Order: sequence, then structure tokens, then C-alpha cells
Amino acid sequence: MNKKTLLYILAILLVQISKAQSSDTIFITDFGVKPYSYENSVTQIQAAIEACKQKGAKVLSFEKGRYDIWPESAMRKEYYISNTSTESECPSKIKTVGLLFENIQNLKVEGNGALLMFHGKMTTIALDHCQDIKLEELHVDFERPAGSELRYIAVNKNYVDVAVHRDTNYEIVDGKINLYGEGWRSNKNHCIEYNQETESFYYSQDWDILSNSPVQEISPNLIRFTIPADFHPKKGNTLTIRDVVRDQVGMFIHQSKNVTLNGMQMHYMHGLGIISQYSENITMNQVKCMPRSESGRLLAASADMMHFSGCKGKILIDGCYFSGAQDDGINIHGTNLKVVEKINSNTLNLRFSHGQSYGFQAYFPGDTVAFIKSATMQRGSTACVRSVKPISNYIWQVEFDQKTPEWLELNHDCVENLTCTPSVVIRNNYFTRTSTRGTLVTTPRKVVIENNIYYKTGMSAILIEGDAEGWFESGPVCDVQIRSNTFIDCAYNGGPGNAVIGINPSNSVINANNPVHKNIRIENNTFKIFDYPVLYAKSTEGLSFINNTIERTTQLKPSTSNKNLFYFNGCNNVKIQNIIYKGDILNKNIQLKNMKRKQLKYSSELTIHSKNN
Amino acid sequence: MNKKTLLYILAILLVQISKAQSSDTIFITDFGVKPYSYENSVTQIQAAIEACKQKGAKVLSFEKGRYDIWPESAMRKEYYISNTSTESECPSKIKTVGLLFENIQNLKVEGNGALLMFHGKMTTIALDHCQDIKLEELHVDFERPAGSELRYIAVNKNYVDVAVHRDTNYEIVDGKINLYGEGWRSNKNHCIEYNQETESFYYSQDWDILSNSPVQEISPNLIRFTIPADFHPKKGNTLTIRDVVRDQVGMFIHQSKNVTLNGMQMHYMHGLGIISQYSENITMNQVKCMPRSESGRLLAASADMMHFSGCKGKILIDGCYFSGAQDDGINIHGTNLKVVEKINSNTLNLRFSHGQSYGFQAYFPGDTVAFIKSATMQRGSTACVRSVKPISNYIWQVEFDQKTPEWLELNHDCVENLTCTPSVVIRNNYFTRTSTRGTLVTTPRKVVIENNIYYKTGMSAILIEGDAEGWFESGPVCDVQIRSNTFIDCAYNGGPGNAVIGINPSNSVINANNPVHKNIRIENNTFKIFDYPVLYAKSTEGLSFINNTIERTTQLKPSTSNKNLFYFNGCNNVKIQNIIYKGDILNKNIQLKNMKRKQLKYSSELTIHSKNN
Repeated sequence: MNKKTLLYILAILLVQISKAQSSDTIFITDFGVKPYSYENSVTQIQAAIEACKQKGAKVLSFEKGRYDIWPESAMRKEYYISNTSTESECPSKIKTVGLLFENIQNLKVEGNGALLMFHGKMTTIALDHCQDIKLEELHVDFERPAGSELRYIAVNKNYVDVAVHRDTNYEIVDGKINLYGEGWRSNKNHCIEYNQETESFYYSQDWDILSNSPVQEISPNLIRFTIPADFHPKKGNTLTIRDVVRDQVGMFIHQSKNVTLNGMQMHYMHGLGIISQYSENITMNQVKCMPRSESGRLLAASADMMHFSGCKGKILIDGCYFSGAQDDGINIHGTNLKVVEKINSNTLNLRFSHGQSYGFQAYFPGDTVAFIKSATMQRGSTACVRSVKPISNYIWQVEFDQKTPEWLELNHDCVENLTCTPSVVIRNNYFTRTSTRGTLVTTPRKVVIENNIYYKTGMSAILIEGDAEGWFESGPVCDVQIRSNTFIDCAYNGGPGNAVIGINPSNSVINANNPVHKNIRIENNTFKIFDYPVLYAKSTEGLSFINNTIERTTQLKPSTSNKNLFYFNGCNNVKIQNIIYKGDILNKNIQLKNMKRKQLKYSSELTIHSKNN
Repeated sequence: MNKKTLLYILAILLVQISKAQSSDTIFITDFGVKPYSYENSVTQIQAAIEACKQKGAKVLSFEKGRYDIWPESAMRKEYYISNTSTESECPSKIKTVGLLFENIQNLKVEGNGALLMFHGKMTTIALDHCQDIKLEELHVDFERPAGSELRYIAVNKNYVDVAVHRDTNYEIVDGKINLYGEGWRSNKNHCIEYNQETESFYYSQDWDILSNSPVQEISPNLIRFTIPADFHPKKGNTLTIRDVVRDQVGMFIHQSKNVTLNGMQMHYMHGLGIISQYSENITMNQVKCMPRSESGRLLAASADMMHFSGCKGKILIDGCYFSGAQDDGINIHGTNLKVVEKINSNTLNLRFSHGQSYGFQAYFPGDTVAFIKSATMQRGSTACVRSVKPISNYIWQVEFDQKTPEWLELNHDCVENLTCTPSVVIRNNYFTRTSTRGTLVTTPRKVVIENNIYYKTGMSAILIEGDAEGWFESGPVCDVQIRSNTFIDCAYNGGPGNAVIGINPSNSVINANNPVHKNIRIENNTFKIFDYPVLYAKSTEGLSFINNTIERTTQLKPSTSNKNLFYFNGCNNVKIQNIIYKGDILNKNIQLKNMKRKQLKYSSELTIHSKNN
């Protein structure tokens, strides 16, 4: 073959490749969507998604620019979503979905930095029964986020002047303030206050006072409240206020498999954040859950930013950024249903037992379950699910391949779905400006939490609960590594013992010889603490705290009643070794409860207190 | 009958009356509408309207308070509306209607001061084939009016700082400004500038310059444009900017009869204002077309505030207020269709001939028409309509009860619907802040314009056109009284000869002995003028100007090239008597054209110039 022929063949091949690529790619602009038209693009975008499905396209491509999405003409679908509103708060479960991907496989959405500007209250994106989906570089925001922001700019004896964020709509009616948005009003409010000096973010009752105080407008977005004499708000602080009703979520990944979010930016999420429910293999790579910097906003989510309920396979959260949540950064758990009736030897009626989670299928034929003794949080025997039948939104009838244990106590003990539990890697992430936890995780499978920075999370940076009492969120962990993370001034709002890391299962019977959680290794981390506690652990077997640095900071003031560096309650086989201390550590000590000293190995510099009650 | 019996009977009667009243009244709140919910109430309000229709209710009652109305779930209906967008500008004629009253009789809507807050681009209210309807005390506004407002707050050599009104949404993209709203963008802009010192309102090219100039945000709603060296905007002035496309109207009264608007407040109207089309007996009483005072806005309408096209019976406009229109306050006219084809001796094909008016029925069986010679604007013979058939949106085939005139020139002469012409009373109104005319009227029936104040209307306060050339808007007037009005500093923007009152038919052949308009009496008015002209009249027979006061003002500077107090062109039987002058009148003179001095009687203080060409 001569050079000319070779070039000719190459040219032909290039044309073919290019043709193949173009037919594999659907361009959003081919559907009449124009960036910066500010018109409602929802119908056209949904048509492009439908075309991807019909044509089996591999890529859905956005041109960079702003696209507006309104509830009008958006898809409606009924979804019962874990940890959202109770039935009484929000009877309708019909979600208004901006981009609905349903039964789609093998698609990459190339956002190219396109900004989807949502309006009203919406679930921005839903993946329902999808597989092998990548969402890349889409930026998602709301024109008028459901969270309002008001900043104290002058505080006087009888009045305060408050700057209302440009994106917060308000009206003064009969001398009182109404916060409203695009088709909604903020009624049952939850207020989290941000102190920009200390960068702390904490629950505040200020809005309860202000919303009942006389107010007048000084100029657009500058208002003056007349305040009670005993009310002393702090100048410069910002109140973030949102309605407690979780009628939508930020994004919903439902019974899907192999889903990757890459470079996504979620600038506001209403109701709850990105919720993955009974899905398998979820990767969150370089996802930013934070306000757009140019927006000047502080709040990016009504509640948890990434919430995983009943997921399996592997959850990987890598290089993400979490800032501005009125709840946790990451929350990974299952849902335990309570045994309410024995139908026959192999069949139970199980009941959702927290009002915010119900109506969705939590067991699937073939799944392995564990029967849980709630009082001790111990997994008993396991069984395999044969069939599942909804009796109501709350009660599901599950038949097993074998007899259910005799010891199951009705209306108390639980059934945990072991199959729908994930292994978890959370690494290289940054957590800040959250009033509660950075990371909540309970799963029996392997968990690695490494190289993260937890900066001033309001409660524990990391909390491992395991809960068959209140939230009924899954069971004991068996293998958790927390390594090479940096924790800075966390837990100023609370958490178990105000500890930076909390391990706090819900078992009411505490017995060091019958622990709940197992095998938790905390190694090579740096704890910068302003207060006494670093670690609180309950009912944990095989807990090591090795090669960590503990450094005292002084910007925040110590405030907790738990004046112990370590607090262990009913633990066994605890090892504390080789701590590097920096600065004036308040108390190099260990408090023990419900356990003996021999159940602990520890460095000599630590003093021990013990109370066994 | 003793006193006790009498009281008893009275009590029974009162209960009965109260029962009758309550069953005759539909309350909007019974349909789940809550004031200040900020939720979209459109479905519930429309259901209440439907209930009025079904139950034959006499009253639809609103509780005072704010109600939000969104395009989502609003009624859609196709309406071809006079003087709205051309087909190329806006191919779809489907309107989004907030409150649609269709085929309803005998209903009073009691607004009780309720504020209907509209969103997006909508036609707020439509009455379609209704009869005996009263709309009372409803206040209508838009959260984000389609008119934007920007005020110069600092003007420097190289830049200007501009305050953007709180209700104007903007975004800066690649250093240029986009004006947008709830689902729309302002693309083809028309800019009218307001000078708050002189209270003048005039067309401006500033926005053409600014929208192409680099801009940055200084703080929310404060932006800085870098400007060309030769651009010298005026500090303190406000630019009002709206899209030229008239895709909706403020309110639409369509083929309805006996409609009264009482105490209505129209705070913003997009596209066009209240347009009454082929309706009979319209009363506008105490209607305020102006921004809500607390809004701080200047603009209340994209174009004409009250527009009447093809109406008949009586139009009464009494005690209304017009402020902030980018076009006329009142415009009353018919629509002449052009003769394009003679089908047979009795039948013509007629064509809509201005792009903004087409697609609606302009002749009805039984109507009397006049055949109009366009060149002279003379009514020829009349005929009665036998049948009407649309050939296309533009061409309508009309059969008459007799032969059509031989002289009709195809593609030039017109057919005027004489039946669809109203008598008009316009009294006790206030007109201000309009860039064009206060009142435009052409109808062959009696017109009385009295006791109005025209304050700084941009063009002629009153203009009588009659037009078979450009806008094709109806024909000669026969009986017009303009009395006891006060005109203050009008016509600084233009109008025929920059006159306060303009009479300016479109005839190209001007012959004083063959006039177009007849019998126009201007009496007992006060003209406060800054410039030379008071009256311009063309082709008018029987024009009197008697007992008027002319007073010189000095705030605005004279600017017109028409340096005549009176300018008459081809008029006959003109009488000018008993003028009371105050102040330094610039030129007490009369300019004649196309007419002889003997066709005029005038006071001795007036000098005469004449040119006959």
C-alpha cells in the first residue's frame, strides 16, 4: 500500500468515525433550546432526553450557557422518597422533575458547564431505572432558591436593620414580613445562622422573633425590624431560612445502576439534596454542592447534600465540595422496617417506622436480610427474601425462604436488608458550613474515609449511628477506616458528647461484651480542636485510634459539658496509640462508662476516669 | 299590625334577603384560594368563574389580599387582537389568560381591593361574548413587569452608574447586559426615557448604546456601563425598556356588551392595555392605569392603555387616571379593510392592511358599511352586510345587499363598518407620563371630551386622525366637542405640527371644499403651552375654537419648527373667537395652507400667513 492509498483510507476512516460520533450524539440545541433565551426550555430538553432513549444515543450534549427550567410543562411523577416529608406535611408525592431520565442505558450527558436555572420548587434531575449513566459538568441552580438569606447590618437597642439577599423575595403585609418565592411561601421555617467571623453555622431562634416583629422597608432589600429589648442579635450574621417541608429533592437516583456524577455543580437543592435510593454503584467525582460564588449566597441545600438510602455495590465520593447545608454533607444508610405482624412461619408484615420514609420498596426477591434485635442492635439470623407485597404505603408483606426467628418482638424488632448495603469510599472531599454532620455512614460493608477536610462542621464531622429506634436507619458497621483526614474546629453545635468523631448506635442495652459496631480504625488524621472531645464511641468492638495528631485551636471557645478527650461507653478492645499533641490540649484523658479498663489499651500520657452505671 | 309582628316580619325578610344574597354570591375563598399564599391560584379562581356561569351567580367576590397567578394551568385561547403583533413577529395568537369569562351574563366581580399578582407574560383578564358584566376594585399587577426600568445615578466621562429597579431582572453575560423576566427575555427593545425634572417622557436611543456597552455589576441592582466619549446621558433620568412584541394584552373585552370597569387598577399591562374589540357599551369608571405607588415604578403599560377597536354603542370613560404608557392613553377607532377583489356585483374580498390587525371578524351580517375613497377619505355610498366569510386570516369575503360602487379602486379604497362605531364620552380623566397621545379618537358618532387634564403628554393631547392609508383606522368624525379641558405642556415629542390638538386625516388629496372631518368644537379649554402651536387641523369643515384660554409656560423650552399658534390645512368654515391670553404668547398667528382667508373667521389680534401649494 503506497502512502497515497494509506492517506485515502485514513481519510475515509476519519469521516466514518466522525459520522458515527455525530449520530451517537444528541445536541440539545437541535431541539430548539437556546442558551440565554430565559424561556422555559423544559419541553425541549425533555424531548432531547427522549430522543436519546429512542435512538440509543451515547451522548447528550449541552452548549455552555444558561437555560431556564420552569415547573410549567415539566414532567410529573409520583415518587416516595426516603427521608422526605411525612404524609401529613405533604400528602402528595408527585414530584415536578426538570430532567427525567427513565429506563435509559449507556448515556453520557455532557454539560460543558451549562447552567440549568430552575424556578419554583422542583426536583432538578431524576434517574429512574437507568444504567451506565454519566452526568458531567452540568451546573444546577435556582433563580429564587427556597432558602432565604437575611443579614444583620446594624443592631440597635430597639431595632435591627437587615439586608435581604437579592434572591430572597419578601413582602411586608400589615407590618409583618412574608418570605415567598416563585409560586410558594415559606411557612414552617427552620433557621440556621451563620457567623462570618467564626464561620460557624448553627440553629437560631432569631427568625421566630423577627417574623413576629414589626418591620418596615427602608429601601429595596433593606428592612428594619423593631425588636424586643431582650433580643440581641449579632451584627454581620446571616440568617438562612427555609421551609421544613421536603416536597421535592435536589436530584433523585432511583433503582439505577452504575451512575457517575462528574464535575456536577449543585448550587441549590430544595427539600433534600442528591438522593440515591436502592441504586447500585454510585460515583460522585468532583461534585460541588455549594452556592455559585458570584451569587453571594451562603446556603446551597435545605438538608443533606448527598443522601444514600438502601444503595448497594460501591459508593465512591471523591474530590467533592460541600458547603452550605442545613443538614449533613453525606448520609449513607439503609432503612430498617419494624416487624408488626407474623403472617405465617415464613412471612412477616413489616412497617416503615419513621414518618419521613415510607411508600417505597425496601426488599427485593433474592435479597438477604438480617433480623435485628432492636434493644441490643444485634444482627440475629439471616434469611433470603422470596416475595414482597405492599399492603399499604407503610406496611409491606415479605415472605422469606425460611422460618423467621421466634425471638422477634412485634412492634420493636426490625429487618435489615443486607443486600442493599454498599461499600463506601469517601476521599479527598471538603466539608464546611453545615449545621450538622459532615459524614453519616452505616453499612456492614467496608468503609474508607480518607484525605478529607472537615472544616467547622456544626456537629460531629463523622457520625456512625446505626439505629433501630428513632430513624430506623440500618445496622452495625463491621469495617471502617478513617485515615489521613483533617478535622478543624468541628462539633461546636453538638453531636454525641460534642466529639469530632461520634460512634453512637441506638441500642438501649449496653454491654461491652456484646458490642454493636466492629472494627473501626482511626489513623493518621489531624484533629484541630477548640474544645475537649475528639472521639465518642459507644458499643464498639475493635476500635483503634493510632498515629493521629491532636492540635489545639483558639478561635472558638470550649463549650461542651463533655470535658474528655475520649469517651468510651460499653466498648471493647479499644487501642489508643501514638498521639502527637500540639498546643494546649485541654484534657488528655479518657472517660469510660459501662466498660472495664482492661478493655482498653492506651498511651501513658492519658488519664482515665471511669463510671459504671 | 302591632310593632312586635312588624319586627318579626322584618326579621324574616332580612333572613330571606341575606339567603338570596348568599346563594347569588360565589366567594373565591370557597375554592381554596388563600390570600398571601403566594401559590398559583389560577385554577381555583377559574373554577370559581366557572361556578358563577354554571349557577348563574350574580356576584363573584374576592377577599382583600394578594393572589398570585402564573401562566401554569392558566387558560389558553387563540385570539386575534387588533393592533397587536404582526404574524412574523409573533406567529402564535394563543393567549395565556388569567381570568377568562366566556359566555357569561349578569355578573359583578367584587374585587374589594384584591391584588392579582401576575407572573410571566399574560393577558390578565378576558371577557369573551359576555353581557352585563361589572368588574370592580380589582388591582392587577405583575411581579416582574415586562417593562424594565433603569435610572442614571452618576454620569461620568467614561462610565455611567445605573440603578436597576428592584423588579427588573438582569444578567451580565460576557460583559453585556441581558434583561429578562419570568420565562422571557427582552429582545427587540423600545426605550422611552423619563426626565423627572421636566416630567417629560420621550423616545430615547440610550438603550441602543448601553445594551452594546461593556457593563459590570457594582452591587446588586447597581451597574456600571463603560460608555463612548460622545454619549452624554442625563443623571436622574430613567430608561423604561420593553420588548416591542405585543404577544399578550393587558385585558381583552371581546364581542361583549354592557361591560363596566369600576375602580379597577391596572398597574402593569403587557403588550397592549385594555383592548375592547367589537364590543358594545363599555364604561370605564375610576379606572387607574398607573403603577402602584409603593412599587416605585414609572411604567404601567407597554402601549395604549385603553384601546377600542370596532366598538359600538356608547363608550364612557369617566374619572380615570392614565400614567406611564409607552404609547397612547386612549385610542378609539375602527378598522378599514382594503378592497382587493370584486367577486361579483355585490361581493368584495377585503383585506386587512396593517400587519398588526388581522384575523378577526370586522363585519357582521346586518351591519351598515360605507365605501371610502382613500385618496380623499370621503365616505361614498353605504350598504348593508349580508354575509361574511373568511378566506384567510387577512382576506374576508363580504356580500352586500346591493351593488358595490363602480369607483372602488382595487388595492386602495376601503370599506368602513359604520355600525361598529361608538359614541364617546371622555370626561374627568387625568393623562400624564405618556410618550405619545393622551386621546386618539375617530368615529362618525358624537364625541364629547370634557373636563380632562392632559399633563405633559409627549405628543398631541388629542389627536383625530382618520386613516385609510397607514393604520387603516376608520374614517371621518362628524361631531366632536372638546370642552373645559386643561392641557399642560403637551406635544413636546411631536404630533402633527407639534400641536396640542391635532386633526390630521390621511387623505392625500386636500381640498378645502371637500373636507374629511366635520363639526369639531373646541371650547372653554385652558391651554398651558411652552411652545408655539395649539391647534393643527387638516381637511376639517366646521371647526370652532371659542372661549379658550391660552397661557404661556416656561419650564420646557420651545423646540418645534411650526412657529404658529394655529395651523389650518385645507379647512373650511373655521371660527376662532374670544381667546384669553396669559403670559408671553410666542406668536399670536394663524398659518393657512390649501385654503382661503374667507374660509376662516378669527379674532383681530391674530395675524395670518398663507401658503397655497
